[in-house]
Formats: sequence, structure tokens, C-alpha cells
Amino acid sequence: MPRYRLTVEYDGSPFVGWQRQDNGPSVQAALEAAVARFCGERPAIVAAGRTDAGVHAWGQVAHLDLVRPVATATLRDAVNFHLRPAPVAVIDAAEVSPDFHARFSATERCYRYRILNRMAPPAIRRGRVWWVRAALDLGAMAEAASILEGAHDFTTFRSTMCHAPSPEKTLDRLRVERRDDEVLIEARARSFLHNQVRILVGTLRLVGEHRWPVEQVGIALAARNRAAGGPTAPPDGLYLVSVRY
Amino acid sequence: MPRYRLTVEYDGSPFVGWQRQDNGPSVQAALEAAVARFCGERPAIVAAGRTDAGVHAWGQVAHLDLVRPVATATLRDAVNFHLRPAPVAVIDAAEVSPDFHARFSATERCYRYRILNRMAPPAIRRGRVWWVRAALDLGAMAEAASILEGAHDFTTFRSTMCHAPSPEKTLDRLRVERRDDEVLIEARARSFLHNQVRILVGTLRLVGEHRWPVEQVGIALAARNRAAGGPTAPPDGLYLVSVRY
Repeated sequence: MPRYRLTVEYDGSPFVGWQRQDNGPSVQAALEAAVARFCGERPAIVAAGRTDAGVHAWGQVAHLDLVRPVATATLRDAVNFHLRPAPVAVIDAAEVSPDFHARFSATERCYRYRILNRMAPPAIRRGRVWWVRAALDLGAMAEAASILEGAHDFTTFRSTMCHAPSPEKTLDRLRVERRDDEVLIEARARSFLHNQVRILVGTLRLVGEHRWPVEQVGIALAARNRAAGGPTAPPDGLYLVSVRY
Repeated sequence: MPRYRLTVEYDGSPFVGWQRQDNGPSVQAALEAAVARFCGERPAIVAAGRTDAGVHAWGQVAHLDLVRPVATATLRDAVNFHLRPAPVAVIDAAEVSPDFHARFSATERCYRYRILNRMAPPAIRRGRVWWVRAALDLGAMAEAASILEGAHDFTTFRSTMCHAPSPEKTLDRLRVERRDDEVLIEARARSFLHNQVRILVGTLRLVGEHRWPVEQVGIALAARNRAAGGPTAPPDGLYLVSVRY
């Protein structure tokens, strides 16, 4: 039974998230339905990252097994055809070895968070960025970000609903840069805790607005307590950019 | 009576265009209604470019006169408040001299057209780009674009509904570049004919797909006949980027 890897882009706005749930449309269900309409098979589709409601993806990676082999270009085009009108697109399809696992084989996930940092609200980018009016101090945010890089117990920066067995993660990269009227925050790690990127961003925003001194971030990290961290940034600005294997 | 210049961003998708019309919501009407809700005055708002239905703007420029002077930051913030939920935002407001005219004082308009050039349809960028599957030949497109730069009779590249008294325009710049999975076409001129950028783009696409040889563009231009030009590209990919005075 051949296994296929799909690279998937989606606008997370209309979805309850990647994972199939009872309370609304999911990206997973949209993809599984499109595959069924294309070939009649109903394989489970497994993703690298189970993005939350409203979170977008430029390069989610998923895998599925099909009983009957199919040309990868056909798989991509047919699934895209049957996905309509859902805002989900298969960017690439490739045949992979049966031991490839979209979730467990991943060695690095890269997320990007977009803050629209200006006085006027978003128009074209509505639902795609987090609007923060106050001019952010990038220097302070970058300094705070560097405190968070590395191997830590990230209890302060995970949802209280997070089921991960351990709060210890290695944040390989947390970088802050300005591009035109946006502040971009890039986070790379082998894996993340639930809401980790959004809580990191919500905390860096406090530093960027000088509501928190830079040192407060280290204190919050050491507290190992969600209540010591900043608020969770909204999903609108978060993108799963790529997954490395 | 003080005059104000507004720099305006909008998502053109839900609008019949800039200009107030009977058949649906316009950006002009949305702005005029927001100004009225803010201060009770109902000035006409005049724009640099009367963009068509579905065309977006990053930096449309408009002017209006108010009887009672107002702080520019207040004007910006109050109009933005009252614009909700329309996807229109005033990026900047400034007081200008009474002889400033958003349309007639403009010395250059810059438009950008975004083509998503890949096999998969847009997901996050739906309604924001024109999807062209066939890999475009940028070299051929750039060569064709250079034929179109300069002062010409652009009859071939204007809508048959265009009311401009003369079809002669000077296209200061028509450049084609690739950025990731997009092909961007930038057009600069003092002013444009109706649908000019979209017909130029629709024609360059034919060249990029090798359905037209580069020389065909010069032949079409010389024909001075709309029927000799390529099709009109859809509005989704077109953005009024900036206006110079």
C-alpha cells in the first residue's frame, strides 16, 4: 500500500483546526472527504502539526496510504479539484517510504507569527495578522526572545490544557524582525507545546510595548507556571510555515 | 474649510469599486458614511484612482473638505472606528492645501499585479491573486513589457468602455519579477486608461505561456484595436500601491 506525503496550504479562518472534531469543519475532514470523492478510499490523514482553530498553514505536511497507487500529480490535482470551495490546497504530493510518518518523523517545525504594527486596523490582511497599535520595541523583543531560545521547561508557555507528557522543549530559534508595517516572529523547534508559540508571542508583545522589562521574561520562564506568562496571542497571525524531516 | 488627504487601504472583493454606484457597496460610500457618522458632515470624497470592482488598494489617496477642523489622528482613528466592519482602513490622514486634488494633482500612480504561478490553486491568497498554472517565462514577459514602456497610443490596451478623451499615455515603467511562487508586474504612469493594467497583464500572460511570440505585443500595440490585445486579467490580482504628487 503506497504512502504519500502531501504539503498543504490553508486559510485556517473557517476551520475548527486541523483535527476532525464534532463542533465544525476541520482541515483534516476536508482533505479526507476530497480524497474519498477522488478515489473512493477513506484513509486517515495524519499531519505534522495539529494546528488550532484559525491558525493558517503555508506548508503543513500530512501523509496517507492508498490501496491503489496513483500518479502524484494526479493526486495533487484531483484532491485540489475536490477540495473546492474549501480554502485548502495541496501544494505538493510525493510518494514516500512506508516508514515515513508526518508527525513522528518530523525533526523541525517552523512557525511564523505576523503582527500588524501600525495605528490603522488591517483591511487586506484581516484575519491574517494580529493588530497591535503601539509601536513595538524590536530591540527589547529580540533580547527577550534570546532568553527563551534553547532547552527549557516551558510550563509558563503552554496551555493549561496541554497534554504533552513533558513541558521540556528545545526552542532552536525565536527571532523577531520588522518587515514594512509588520513584526514577524519566527519560531523553530523539533516540536512545540500546545499554544506555545501564541503564548510566547503574547509575552513578547508585552516586552515590545514596555509593559514588561526584558528580565521579566526570564523570571516568568523560571516560574514554570502558566499564570506567570503573558496572554495567548490570537490565532489569526500564526502560520505553520514548514516541516523538516 | 480645511482639506484633508487620506491614504486608504482596502480589500476590493466586496465592493463594486471605488466609486459610488446604485448596484452595490462602494469604497467611496463606505468612507463617506464613516465620515458622516463621525462628525455629521457629508463631504464628497475624491480619489486618485477609481478602482474597479474587486481591485484592491494598499495606498489609494483621497481628499475631503470638512467645515469644522479636526486633528488628523482623530480623523484617522474615528473614521476607522466607523468603517467597521467594512474591509477599508485609513492608514494616514494629513491636512493639505486647498489646491491639493487627489485626482488632478497626482503625478504618478503605481499599480502592482500578483499572479500566483504554480500548479496548486490559492488558499490563503484566494481573491488576492490571479492563479496561472503554466510556468511563465519571465524573460519573454520582461522583453514584451519593455516594448510597452514609453509613450504610445494604448487603444489596444483599454476597455472599449473607456471614456478617456485620448488613448495616448506614457507608461513610465512596466516590470516583471518573480517572488517565490508569484509573478509580480509593476506598472507606473501619470495616469492609466480604463482596464489598461489588466489588459497589459492578460497580454503578458500569453507571452509568458509562449502562446504569443514577444513580437506579437508590438504588432498588437500598433494595431490600435482592442481586439488585437490579450484578454483582461481578473481584478483579484490588482493593487493600487501608491500615488505620487
